[in-house]
Amino acid sequence: MNRESTPPSLGDISAEEFRRHLHEIANWIADYREHIADKRISPAAKPGAIRAALPFAAPEQGESLDTIMADFERVILPGITHWAHPQFMGYFGATTTGPGILAEMLTAALNVNAMTWRTSPAATELETVVLSWLQQWLGLPNEFSGVVYDTASISTMHALAAAREEASTSVRTLGLSGRSELPIFRVYTSDQAHSSVEKAAIALGLGEHNVRRIASDSEFRMDAKALRETIAADLRKEFMPLAVVATVGTTSTASVDPVSGIAAVCREHQMWLHIDAAYGGGMALLPECDWVRNGWNEADSLVLNPHKMLFVPFDFSALYVRDIERLRDVFTLVPEYLRGDAAGAEINYMDYGVQLGRRFRALKAWMVWRAFGREGLAARLREHLRLAQLFTSWITEDTRFQLASPTVMGVVCFRAISTDDAASDRLNSRLVETINAAGKTYLMQTKLRGRAVMRLGLGNILTTEEHLRTVWRLIRNAADSAA
Amino acid sequence: MNRESTPPSLGDISAEEFRRHLHEIANWIADYREHIADKRISPAAKPGAIRAALPFAAPEQGESLDTIMADFERVILPGITHWAHPQFMGYFGATTTGPGILAEMLTAALNVNAMTWRTSPAATELETVVLSWLQQWLGLPNEFSGVVYDTASISTMHALAAAREEASTSVRTLGLSGRSELPIFRVYTSDQAHSSVEKAAIALGLGEHNVRRIASDSEFRMDAKALRETIAADLRKEFMPLAVVATVGTTSTASVDPVSGIAAVCREHQMWLHIDAAYGGGMALLPECDWVRNGWNEADSLVLNPHKMLFVPFDFSALYVRDIERLRDVFTLVPEYLRGDAAGAEINYMDYGVQLGRRFRALKAWMVWRAFGREGLAARLREHLRLAQLFTSWITEDTRFQLASPTVMGVVCFRAISTDDAASDRLNSRLVETINAAGKTYLMQTKLRGRAVMRLGLGNILTTEEHLRTVWRLIRNAADSAA
Repeated sequence: MNRESTPPSLGDISAEEFRRHLHEIANWIADYREHIADKRISPAAKPGAIRAALPFAAPEQGESLDTIMADFERVILPGITHWAHPQFMGYFGATTTGPGILAEMLTAALNVNAMTWRTSPAATELETVVLSWLQQWLGLPNEFSGVVYDTASISTMHALAAAREEASTSVRTLGLSGRSELPIFRVYTSDQAHSSVEKAAIALGLGEHNVRRIASDSEFRMDAKALRETIAADLRKEFMPLAVVATVGTTSTASVDPVSGIAAVCREHQMWLHIDAAYGGGMALLPECDWVRNGWNEADSLVLNPHKMLFVPFDFSALYVRDIERLRDVFTLVPEYLRGDAAGAEINYMDYGVQLGRRFRALKAWMVWRAFGREGLAARLREHLRLAQLFTSWITEDTRFQLASPTVMGVVCFRAISTDDAASDRLNSRLVETINAAGKTYLMQTKLRGRAVMRLGLGNILTTEEHLRTVWRLIRNAADSAA
Repeated sequence: MNRESTPPSLGDISAEEFRRHLHEIANWIADYREHIADKRISPAAKPGAIRAALPFAAPEQGESLDTIMADFERVILPGITHWAHPQFMGYFGATTTGPGILAEMLTAALNVNAMTWRTSPAATELETVVLSWLQQWLGLPNEFSGVVYDTASISTMHALAAAREEASTSVRTLGLSGRSELPIFRVYTSDQAHSSVEKAAIALGLGEHNVRRIASDSEFRMDAKALRETIAADLRKEFMPLAVVATVGTTSTASVDPVSGIAAVCREHQMWLHIDAAYGGGMALLPECDWVRNGWNEADSLVLNPHKMLFVPFDFSALYVRDIERLRDVFTLVPEYLRGDAAGAEINYMDYGVQLGRRFRALKAWMVWRAFGREGLAARLREHLRLAQLFTSWITEDTRFQLASPTVMGVVCFRAISTDDAASDRLNSRLVETINAAGKTYLMQTKLRGRAVMRLGLGNILTTEEHLRTVWRLIRNAADSAA
């Protein structure tokens, strides 16, 4: 190995070469987005095949970007599940948008850090601006203020950290361990809630088993009566009720917990009310969906992920906290090397969380939301809700299928019927696998009350009624073949 | 307000318009990077000025991307601190690179999630590939495996969560609170370590005050004897030593703790050894800097941020854990709606942390590292080390200045001398403010042993010796004017 045989230039790639590749990739992205409907959605690859097709040894010498891009096309791209495909119906639908991609390009070129105001004033001030826009759209009272994180899991972890401090001061400084005066805290959430509640409880030292899953009703909404009973039983055993995480738009069915009723329970027991509106909160942009906001004003915190419903590319999660100083008091910590930086600013977002480094995420929200306006966002949300209702009507009209949950947002859960429940479980599971393997659409399977169901999630800005009709045809064809 | 007067189109912006903007922004990025040295580095803006120059009311109607881009140029850009400027000497230097920007463009267009293998097989497999490359370069033994997070703070939090579980099983399930059998845990780190250690202790319920800051020696390295004494004293008071966080490249001076000596203490007391090599770990790519790896093989975990030294754009933090199942056991939790997804995969990276959603971060590491190769990375690192030594020689040769710490990596801490210590503190603080306000370079101020010092950080791939000479001239001129 003659390490110094070809000394690389010490700067970056040349300006001309860089410009050429920028335009080539610009074209690639335009083509990708224009012809994405022709792509196979999910790869046929077996685990390990992509890795095996690439050199596993770390590269010793540099290579040309042309070679690298050729490998990207040859090996990486066929291994991608194309979330942006208009017939991709997994999760909550992809929120890739043209303006979002353009914004991410600028963010990458600037590559600034939004930890303090001074590290890039515009990054901090734009974060305040877009958080305020979203707050106006959500109708959240002025006592709330927001902060942007990467994911709802991190948002919920921070909300529960503030709740933990509130319930027992000095947890920040002294921790939870070895303190005989502290009780065992309990967090309540429905049996339909996101796993992030347990993950937060694990991280925060509250314990996974101290998250109590409250039964949901026939429409998958937390049963406030069961909540009240569970808390009463816990109090008798000297557990200390800490917080309730209510969900507005659960992951499996997009059901909405009765937040007002839950808020009353929280008030009674002085518990923190955190609302996980990561997906469903975006509906508040529609005046006709005002019901979705029931009880929000009584919350202590609310998380909403614009990367789930509001067309901002991944990742962007907004946490709002009533009197956000309660959160700041838990996490602010200015090291010596940032003291000069931190001085004189109105706000330094690093004060509100574990993460010190923070990408300039506000730019993409600002560009997407200005490009569409509330009107444009609302029109697109309405269209997704209309499509979800349309698909629901097809399901209810076809005797081979049944609806598995009410369709309240852009998610439809349904089930192919067979001779008995067990046979139907096998059928639905097999149908999803067969349909996804064909690569023309992508559904999820989940379980509701122990029974396998198929789940379709809308949200992609490119999805039209025509695409949905194609998806429906593919599902029916698969059911025909299975019969 | 006539909301429905101009119904927006329901798809995205038109393909032609999108393509035009892609090329415009491609040109913008090429120009930005080509002419960045002409920019004023940090804005003159007062807090709130940028916000005030933008409409604060949420946009009701959509606007053209031309208008938005014009506002970006007019208001946002002048509010940016240009980390990518070759005379920006803040923090650890920006790691923006051409290939990194190109990769982020592709990531934004794909907008896939790397939570399970199935959500995009190539995203998961490429993460395994680049983690393996980095591991080969670092010479970490095969018992280690890695996972990518956003920041070192999150990496360290996860490492200490694994340590917490190891020291007392069932913390995952039962938590820390209300358990009389649990001791008070203590975490040890040097007085020069990053604030992320305390932030992790706060989040994990260990308590900020249970992070003991161990004195550092004259070269800002943790004093292993002081560590031993502090642990002994803690044991007498029935605290339980949990973990030591040793630093390889501290934030203020880039000093390196005596990891081998610390590892011996950890072995004695069965403590978890976590190495924060977020910045300094990259030096392991240079055979002549092999000393930096001392003691690594004895660690339980190590974090390295390629976005600090290895030319990968922000954010990208790699955590390596010996027998990583110890980390997985704390955080794996597969919800019903991901059970189909998770089945059959070799690895689902969501199992290793709080965050479920995960950006496709591996692509940028893969493109940057292939474009440069280890040789290219090493040559650039060597150049930064050479520049740091060159700057150090200028400081030592100029009687108005003195070195404030040994220069061991790309960070130089120095101090302008005045009549006494207090006058010198004021002078150094004022110099940094004056120099930064002029917008031609950007230094940091920190405190060492209570005394204000100036700090210069190299790492930008565009920085040449000529740029550094200019920075030095600006510093001397400012000192002349202040005299």
